[in-house]
Amino acid sequence: MKKSKNSKIAEKKRIELLELLKNRGLEIYDDLEKSKFPKFSIPSRSVSNIVYDKKLRQYILGNSTAIRSAGNMSQLRAFTQLVWLAFFANQLLSEQKTSTLRDIYYSSQAFEVDFEDQPESDNIIVDLEAVLARAREDFQIFPEERSSIFGDLTIEYTVPGYEGKRSNLSDHPDGYLIGPSLNTAEFVDTSAELVIAIEKGGLFTRFVEEKVDKKFKAIIVDTAGQAPRSTRYILRRLHIELGLPVVILTDGDVYGEHIAMVIKSGSANAAHLRELTVPDAKWIGVWATDIEKYKLPTIPMTESDIKRIYELQKDPRYQHGNWKKQLEVFLKIKRKAELEAFSKYGLTNITDKYLPQKLELAKSL
Amino acid sequence: MKKSKNSKIAEKKRIELLELLKNRGLEIYDDLEKSKFPKFSIPSRSVSNIVYDKKLRQYILGNSTAIRSAGNMSQLRAFTQLVWLAFFANQLLSEQKTSTLRDIYYSSQAFEVDFEDQPESDNIIVDLEAVLARAREDFQIFPEERSSIFGDLTIEYTVPGYEGKRSNLSDHPDGYLIGPSLNTAEFVDTSAELVIAIEKGGLFTRFVEEKVDKKFKAIIVDTAGQAPRSTRYILRRLHIELGLPVVILTDGDVYGEHIAMVIKSGSANAAHLRELTVPDAKWIGVWATDIEKYKLPTIPMTESDIKRIYELQKDPRYQHGNWKKQLEVFLKIKRKAELEAFSKYGLTNITDKYLPQKLELAKSL
Repeated sequence: MKKSKNSKIAEKKRIELLELLKNRGLEIYDDLEKSKFPKFSIPSRSVSNIVYDKKLRQYILGNSTAIRSAGNMSQLRAFTQLVWLAFFANQLLSEQKTSTLRDIYYSSQAFEVDFEDQPESDNIIVDLEAVLARAREDFQIFPEERSSIFGDLTIEYTVPGYEGKRSNLSDHPDGYLIGPSLNTAEFVDTSAELVIAIEKGGLFTRFVEEKVDKKFKAIIVDTAGQAPRSTRYILRRLHIELGLPVVILTDGDVYGEHIAMVIKSGSANAAHLRELTVPDAKWIGVWATDIEKYKLPTIPMTESDIKRIYELQKDPRYQHGNWKKQLEVFLKIKRKAELEAFSKYGLTNITDKYLPQKLELAKSL
Repeated sequence: MKKSKNSKIAEKKRIELLELLKNRGLEIYDDLEKSKFPKFSIPSRSVSNIVYDKKLRQYILGNSTAIRSAGNMSQLRAFTQLVWLAFFANQLLSEQKTSTLRDIYYSSQAFEVDFEDQPESDNIIVDLEAVLARAREDFQIFPEERSSIFGDLTIEYTVPGYEGKRSNLSDHPDGYLIGPSLNTAEFVDTSAELVIAIEKGGLFTRFVEEKVDKKFKAIIVDTAGQAPRSTRYILRRLHIELGLPVVILTDGDVYGEHIAMVIKSGSANAAHLRELTVPDAKWIGVWATDIEKYKLPTIPMTESDIKRIYELQKDPRYQHGNWKKQLEVFLKIKRKAELEAFSKYGLTNITDKYLPQKLELAKSL
């Protein structure tokens, strides 16, 4: 049994963040007392300021900043919205209540803070993330996410009413939802030696049924397509806190390859954040080269599949190794295969044959 | 504590269905021995054969049937596909393995049974449902569903490896996924006196946080939009087996009203099935009339919202009472409001004020 290295993480994060918010508030009061217009300096998220950092192995923001000052008529609106959001985030954190992007938009109306529409409030939420260098989930704003997890991992809840209560994530065979409570839970112990992230719920269920968790000592995560942020955060925690290697299984297409890439090194959209990547994660399939090797039934690519390949070929992360090679093979064969395609050889072919072969291969990746 | 009236339901259903499949198979053998071409007689699902049954309070199929005979060249393909699917369903049931619509499509290739594409195999699955008058979930074919449930309900699993194992659905505050294991679990006991189905995950989380389960002795179900079939099946079981009343909360728009209607009386698509409705379920909001009463922030309706109202006004279920009235008011105000709109009056306004008022009102509905 491995013990979590970081106990009381959630509570520590909460206190730190409350402190950060308080300090921001104090700065505003300071400015006002000195008869200065208060302002926020926000790392710029414009395309020209997003750069790939080879050492961190993810996108980060450069040094450009944008100013939101109360002393500038054109910035006053965004400044006010940001101050309100910081106030509201402080309230959510203090009361340990969660909220959603949609809720934030409506909640602002209670305070007569004007947002034109939800995209405007969503954008201010990203501004606050950038100012604090913390994900919105850290200040209790959760999107609706329906991804899930299964395997021998005992967690201890930290949410109000559940403090100290434990669950083992193999207790419910349909999988545990990854939501606010799981995100803030502490990892107590596990017998797992591996994390398998898989793109599709149907396959997740198959893996649970076929006891992949026991046979391969694995925690299984259903990313439900492109992994939502809380799911990427959980994958990172499993890797860092428990030292577990993470492997990723996706459909054999360009979108699958990129799902794996985003888990590994994040997205340009979240370049202002650090806690959502697993740089050591390995994409083990379905590769373009697997399609021929395993004689999988295929579907022809669409125009947009092909366009997407050309786009990714410009991304610095696809310039070498297997990532580059697989894009090239996809482009050559112009066909794709789904994870379910293995069912042609029987429902358990993927767990009996393909998975063990790819896990063995992953050791040398 | 109420005890489930129907214990061992899942196992009983499984045995019955295996028997049904076996009998169908025997009929085919009989025909062959008598040198007759075997055939299936399938209740017709054409629009002209779908009628609303006032007594059952749901859509049902009329008396027209379609024949799939091995002796008719144009029907031979569908006949063969149906026989194969019955064989495969028998295998899934015997081995207690689950599958998905997608998996069925690929699995057929292992047997060289030809399906043009997935819509063709999906259609044959509905044919088998109609032949057996059983939902595909009963023969272990599950779609990917991401709805969830929370509250004091102790269940006992029946899936392989978990037989006899119990969970209480309030143990995981992010909610329990409604999947194959939950669907086939037995309900052991509950202190709940009510089921609240709610359309949105964000509100579901809010309800859990605000302890709606305890304050209102409720089991809370997130339908994640239009309730998937397993979710409707679970709602029906909670109502029938535990005798719990079911109330439904949706967004204040025509789609919300219809989400409630489908939970109550099913859809024309599933007219060949009986186990997916809760005729006594009550839609408690957000009504069109609530929008003004509670001074909710609104959004203008789109053209397609308005078109949908006109469509539903032709549906026999919307010809009277509150269902009719609310459609009329929506059409008059041409605006809609989301559940999150209550956040204008504070995050807990919906649980502190609106919910208790509407639950009180529901007693007289």
